Amino acid sequence: MRRFFERYGDKVGRPPGTLDLATSTSERPVTISVIQFDPEGVDERVFDDVEQLAALPKRGVTWINVAGVHRPDVIGALGAEFGLHPLLLEDVVHTTQRPKVEEFDDHIYVVLHMISVASLADEDGYAIDGEQVSFVLTPRALLTFQEQAGDVFDTVRDRVRRARGRIRKSGVDYLLYTLLDVVVDHYFLVLERIGERVEELDELLEQPRGGAGLDEVHAVRRALLQLRRTVGPARDVAATLARGDSAFVKKSTLPFFRDVMDHATRVSDSVESLRELTTSLADLHMSRLSHRMNEVMKVLTVIATIFIPMTFIAGVYGMNFVQMPELGWRYGYPAVWAVMLGVGGGLVVYMRKRGWL
Amino acid sequence: MRRFFERYGDKVGRPPGTLDLATSTSERPVTISVIQFDPEGVDERVFDDVEQLAALPKRGVTWINVAGVHRPDVIGALGAEFGLHPLLLEDVVHTTQRPKVEEFDDHIYVVLHMISVASLADEDGYAIDGEQVSFVLTPRALLTFQEQAGDVFDTVRDRVRRARGRIRKSGVDYLLYTLLDVVVDHYFLVLERIGERVEELDELLEQPRGGAGLDEVHAVRRALLQLRRTVGPARDVAATLARGDSAFVKKSTLPFFRDVMDHATRVSDSVESLRELTTSLADLHMSRLSHRMNEVMKVLTVIATIFIPMTFIAGVYGMNFVQMPELGWRYGYPAVWAVMLGVGGGLVVYMRKRGWL
Amino acid sequence: MRRFFERYGDKVGRPPGTLDLATSTSERPVTISVIQFDPEGVDERVFDDVEQLAALPKRGVTWINVAGVHRPDVIGALGAEFGLHPLLLEDVVHTTQRPKVEEFDDHIYVVLHMISVASLADEDGYAIDGEQVSFVLTPRALLTFQEQAGDVFDTVRDRVRRARGRIRKSGVDYLLYTLLDVVVDHYFLVLERIGERVEELDELLEQPRGGAGLDEVHAVRRALLQLRRTVGPARDVAATLARGDSAFVKKSTLPFFRDVMDHATRVSDSVESLRELTTSLADLHMSRLSHRMNEVMKVLTVIATIFIPMTFIAGVYGMNFVQMPELGWRYGYPAVWAVMLGVGGGLVVYMRKRGWL
Amino acid sequence: MRRFFERYGDKVGRPPGTLDLATSTSERPVTISVIQFDPEGVDERVFDDVEQLAALPKRGVTWINVAGVHRPDVIGALGAEFGLHPLLLEDVVHTTQRPKVEEFDDHIYVVLHMISVASLADEDGYAIDGEQVSFVLTPRALLTFQEQAGDVFDTVRDRVRRARGRIRKSGVDYLLYTLLDVVVDHYFLVLERIGERVEELDELLEQPRGGAGLDEVHAVRRALLQLRRTVGPARDVAATLARGDSAFVKKSTLPFFRDVMDHATRVSDSVESLRELTTSLADLHMSRLSHRMNEVMKVLTVIATIFIPMTFIAGVYGMNFVQMPELGWRYGYPAVWAVMLGVGGGLVVYMRKRGWL
Amino acid sequence: MRRFFERYGDKVGRPPGTLDLATSTSERPVTISVIQFDPEGVDERVFDDVEQLAALPKRGVTWINVAGVHRPDVIGALGAEFGLHPLLLEDVVHTTQRPKVEEFDDHIYVVLHMISVASLADEDGYAIDGEQVSFVLTPRALLTFQEQAGDVFDTVRDRVRRARGRIRKSGVDYLLYTLLDVVVDHYFLVLERIGERVEELDELLEQPRGGAGLDEVHAVRRALLQLRRTVGPARDVAATLARGDSAFVKKSTLPFFRDVMDHATRVSDSVESLRELTTSLADLHMSRLSHRMNEVMKVLTVIATIFIPMTFIAGVYGMNFVQMPELGWRYGYPAVWAVMLGVGGGLVVYMRKRGWL
Repeated sequence: MRRFFERYGDKVGRPPGTLDLATSTSERPVTISVIQFDPEGVDERVFDDVEQLAALPKRGVTWINVAGVHRPDVIGALGAEFGLHPLLLEDVVHTTQRPKVEEFDDHIYVVLHMISVASLADEDGYAIDGEQVSFVLTPRALLTFQEQAGDVFDTVRDRVRRARGRIRKSGVDYLLYTLLDVVVDHYFLVLERIGERVEELDELLEQPRGGAGLDEVHAVRRALLQLRRTVGPARDVAATLARGDSAFVKKSTLPFFRDVMDHATRVSDSVESLRELTTSLADLHMSRLSHRMNEVMKVLTVIATIFIPMTFIAGVYGMNFVQMPELGWRYGYPAVWAVMLGVGGGLVVYMRKRGWL
Repeated sequence: MRRFFERYGDKVGRPPGTLDLATSTSERPVTISVIQFDPEGVDERVFDDVEQLAALPKRGVTWINVAGVHRPDVIGALGAEFGLHPLLLEDVVHTTQRPKVEEFDDHIYVVLHMISVASLADEDGYAIDGEQVSFVLTPRALLTFQEQAGDVFDTVRDRVRRARGRIRKSGVDYLLYTLLDVVVDHYFLVLERIGERVEELDELLEQPRGGAGLDEVHAVRRALLQLRRTVGPARDVAATLARGDSAFVKKSTLPFFRDVMDHATRVSDSVESLRELTTSLADLHMSRLSHRMNEVMKVLTVIATIFIPMTFIAGVYGMNFVQMPELGWRYGYPAVWAVMLGVGGGLVVYMRKRGWL
Repeated sequence: MRRFFERYGDKVGRPPGTLDLATSTSERPVTISVIQFDPEGVDERVFDDVEQLAALPKRGVTWINVAGVHRPDVIGALGAEFGLHPLLLEDVVHTTQRPKVEEFDDHIYVVLHMISVASLADEDGYAIDGEQVSFVLTPRALLTFQEQAGDVFDTVRDRVRRARGRIRKSGVDYLLYTLLDVVVDHYFLVLERIGERVEELDELLEQPRGGAGLDEVHAVRRALLQLRRTVGPARDVAATLARGDSAFVKKSTLPFFRDVMDHATRVSDSVESLRELTTSLADLHMSRLSHRMNEVMKVLTVIATIFIPMTFIAGVYGMNFVQMPELGWRYGYPAVWAVMLGVGGGLVVYMRKRGWL
Repeated sequence: MRRFFERYGDKVGRPPGTLDLATSTSERPVTISVIQFDPEGVDERVFDDVEQLAALPKRGVTWINVAGVHRPDVIGALGAEFGLHPLLLEDVVHTTQRPKVEEFDDHIYVVLHMISVASLADEDGYAIDGEQVSFVLTPRALLTFQEQAGDVFDTVRDRVRRARGRIRKSGVDYLLYTLLDVVVDHYFLVLERIGERVEELDELLEQPRGGAGLDEVHAVRRALLQLRRTVGPARDVAATLARGDSAFVKKSTLPFFRDVMDHATRVSDSVESLRELTTSLADLHMSRLSHRMNEVMKVLTVIATIFIPMTFIAGVYGMNFVQMPELGWRYGYPAVWAVMLGVGGGLVVYMRKRGWL
Repeated sequence: MRRFFERYGDKVGRPPGTLDLATSTSERPVTISVIQFDPEGVDERVFDDVEQLAALPKRGVTWINVAGVHRPDVIGALGAEFGLHPLLLEDVVHTTQRPKVEEFDDHIYVVLHMISVASLADEDGYAIDGEQVSFVLTPRALLTFQEQAGDVFDTVRDRVRRARGRIRKSGVDYLLYTLLDVVVDHYFLVLERIGERVEELDELLEQPRGGAGLDEVHAVRRALLQLRRTVGPARDVAATLARGDSAFVKKSTLPFFRDVMDHATRVSDSVESLRELTTSLADLHMSRLSHRMNEVMKVLTVIATIFIPMTFIAGVYGMNFVQMPELGWRYGYPAVWAVMLGVGGGLVVYMRKRGWL
């Protein structure tokens, strides 16, 4: 079972902006890829050294993607280069932030979680992989920080390269929108897979032996809890950006951020609906179970109630007393049958009147 | 069972305003019907080409209804003709939007879902058909987009033709109100059918064998969840329009939008009430079940508790030991009867004192 | 069982302000009673024709009460006479409005529901009768519309006639307050009766056989749901009036509207408390049931567990095998008794150690 | 069982400000005690006539405490003397008001409920006695109205007499604060006793026979409901006073009202926590019950399942057929024992594999 | 079991600002440690007398930590020295305050609870130790009050001494931030331990015999309730400080307070998630229990239902009537076997058809 909560303990008491305790033991390299574009064309470069950034020409929109936040020296150098707030750098490095927007004097910091479904319903439970993605919007450049190199932004890179849509003609704020949109669209994907699984569980739990499905309903609920903690704040992030308080976001880009907000709201609504659905599902299953148990109990009761007194009577005349006058009666045996059937039949009638048969 | 969540996956990573991935494989035609009216008269035309729209005379109120949003070329041409925002066009085409109002500089975009009860309680579960209806309000024209040609707006067309009510004398904002009112009134219809079904379920679940009703209660709750996701935002849409922030909505039309808001609020309240009612219903049913089970168990216990010891005694004197002095006693047999009845009677007294009989 | 939801269906698609579909088939007469008063005296008149209203002298406060909203011609004529908005007239006629205040340029429209307890806990369930009461406040006159002639406002008429309190010295807004106060006071009456019934149910459900009470708890919850839908919006109505935004309500009358708001809030609070109380009641009852069932089961288990093995042993020595050496043993019979009692006693000791006895 | 809801019925339809229907039949006297103080000294007087109040000298702070609100003439005379609003007087007399602050032009009216624990967990259930206390703050005098003479304000009187704290040096608003603080402190007392009782219940319900505790949990929940209806609005009262909108409350007194607000918030939080705790408690108890029942059932099943087939076999060979070859077999008897033990042992193995033993 | 609610009773009726009823019987010493620092250096002193404070030089930032609030004379003298509000002093001494910020004219008062996990899941239940920490921010000095000397602030002292981070270069507001951050970071630690325990419980409750885990789930829920009452208001405290309304907090420090707020929000979110998770956990466990019970009951029913009628038949032919013709039949015995197996087999078929086997 994957951990539901991360460790925070080793951070207590360190000064803010401390970067050196991050997972710096890792030897994974950090890749810095830079895309510069304007309506006329695109320049792509890959660095593994921050100093090289200083030599970048000023041109159109600059998108610097940093894949890997485990090297505090790199993050620190970037921070110095772009004049970023130390708290911002700390948040970039400590990848358990709550999604949020933080506006500084000359840049905006956005944190979101990119989630994807690593596995659904396999033996490890529902593994929802979450990766923190940080965005720093400065007037002419957008910095993005991923925990590891991934392909989630490839579609956007492609659009930049091929000049599809308006991305080449728009500013850095539109680029930010495009990337947020990709992140939120992935929420839909995760939600969709969970939704499908819930539909399957709905059918599974209709089966009498569907009890195993209950464990999975619990796992789904757990996954939805995680999703909600990711999506709810993401909605607030989009709403904050869509309000347009910031000087960095052009008015013409606001409808796009509103669009992202709408999407996040829809995901959020659906998470709530799914939560209620799973609750209703589990209740229904338990009700069915009670019904079935009731049926079973009724049969036991009917059989036992009818035969227990009859067996008692048979037992009586199985006793070996020397003096048992009934045993010698001529019609003793049929009479006992009559009594036994009478008792049994009477009980059947009684139970039928009570509505149990 | 109908799908509770739609697929979004194929949209991830495409630029906003992309129209070409809609269900364009479909060969269904798109019908563009135009009604132009002023207090003096009405002109009705049907086009299947957007270019013809350019030739429309300017006259009173123009209502352009587009039945079918699967032809991106048509939607795109309309967008170009009326200067609509690309995001708006995308929302028109991707018919899984959350109900919302979006105000642009020179037009207002409204999305609602028109729902109708396709089937209730038949073998397919509760199928609530939802169709996205988009409205674009410009100063002199109203564009409406339906997923397919339907008759839901026919009553309004009729009112325009016959000049019933004030519709012919009012502006394009009043026309928008009229159509929203029709959509919200359909919510009432759906709610009413669900409400009736809940009343039937209430009676059904009173029956001892009403267990099958529980599955339907679950289906109803599911339908109410869907309804809530439709109606709640619709209420917000009406409230936004009724606030009258927009320059396109005349002050004299505001009471009408408030009226729509009141209706949507009423639907919304009723959905919540129905949800609580179904919960209460299911709880009540489970309680009754427990009661009945309790009764059944008590009878089993009483019968078994009384006869099991008596049967044991009879069993003892059915043993074949050579040396069983009681068997030879003169009053052994009646004595054993006395003991057995004494034990049974004592247990009856005990149970009566415990309040189980 | 009374209907929980009203039919709305036949209204879909009609233009707003349509009055002619109301229950106009009814031949019940409409009574229009007019009371005019100032500190000096009172004039009472009864009309059955709207035209006569035009001839009313202008004097102090004019209160026009219309008992019966089923005659659209009457309502329409009144609307024309006082210049009322068509939507207002529609709301007056269609008596399923949500309680609300609507401010127009020269009149305020208030809708409330007057409820009374038609029957509690009789064979028809909880019948809460609701009647829509509409108030139109104009600068000098108050129009009230009741669904049918009733005596709920008689106490107010009486106060006007006898000049009790400040009513004759105050304006038309104070008259409105007085009538709203009467309506809200009736909520208290209904609530009180439900509250009493809940107390009785509390005692009833303490009885072991109180299961029938559960059905009534459900009925109470249903009634409380209905009450809440009536009272909650009524509170908002009073709050809106108490805010004093309207030019029609004198500042000196505001404390009175605040008083009505306080009353409605108290009713509203009590409805919530009662809802929680009934939930707690039902839970408690179910818990008691489980406890009792547990007790019953324990007795069954104890008796059965003790005697079933003993009966088996007796059964063994009731077998008729030729070769059963134990049967001939001198102390076979007492030995078997010893074994049986040993087994039974051992089980008793075991169960006592498990804490079941 | 004490009544949870009070009667309101006899008030319907009377004009506001009607005082004469209060419990005026009572012959209990009304005590009016006046304390006047300034930093130099204290004057205490007791009247039983309102006229004497007119002769009071003007001096420092005047605190008039009226013990008993059942004499409308007294209340009316006081109202006339201090120019109080008739609605205020009505609220003083009708002692079922919701806690609230009402600001009039030249006085502020505050209603709270003083509660105390009359009895906890005795045979009458949880009796929470509530008494309405009204405060009228005028620029130089504070009027307080208690339902009956009591000693709850004695500590404050004492502080005035002994000049403890700053009370003698402060104004009438500080006196109001002091009294509110006493009222809210009593909520803590009640809460504390309930809290202690809940801890005892927690331990009681751990016992297998703790079922009786469930009834008390219900009573506690009921008491908490009552407490919440008292405390929640009391918090709002303190918050309103702490906002300092009123000209009567000096800025230097605001921190004290904020302090009262903090206390009331704490009570309010604790009430909620206790409510959740009792719910969790009841759930836990029910779970334990289910567990224990499960254990009991398992034993019954195991015993019955093992012995019922064995008993059947013994029964077979207890039959008296003439032709039963097995009976004459040499090893028939041991063979039957072997079969019986084989069946029983096989079932034990089966059940062990299912994890039931 | 630790007390869930503290005693308040002995405080009722005392004037505000009364310090003398605190636990002054204690002879524990009060330690006053002073740290003064500026970018150039640090001075540390320890006093046990307040008078010595007056002789402190004015230099950079002064941090006065008071360990022990049980000596009212010390607190009172400090209050006089720094001109603190008497209510503030009372709140410092009475260590059951709700977390809050109180702004006075020349100082800000902040109360938080420092919590730590004393023990988890040992025999005393979940003991969450809470200690009230008070902060008084004046323009140049920060006063902190701990209930007892502890090491929680040692990391900060260390940072001051070693000039790590920006603490030596920043003002007294940054020092306040640093300490709040330490307090909130401890919430993470507590939450983390509870989170781990919940994961263990999740696994424990999967075991059939995991019933004991339910008691612990209850204890966890109780601990989460306590945590919530601590963390929720702490979040509000940070939010208030982050709003920057106060003149004492420099604009450049606001992002740091926002950071604390983000952390507290995350803790708060996680507490809610854990609460839902434990609820879901308990539900799941109960469902599994029901499932298992159902299985057990079914086996009992099947066995009993099959053998009870067969045993009855055997009992019949064990009777000793003289006239029982079947006993003498040639194939009587095999016939009876056939009947018995027929009955048993028939029942098996029936139950298989009902889906119980």
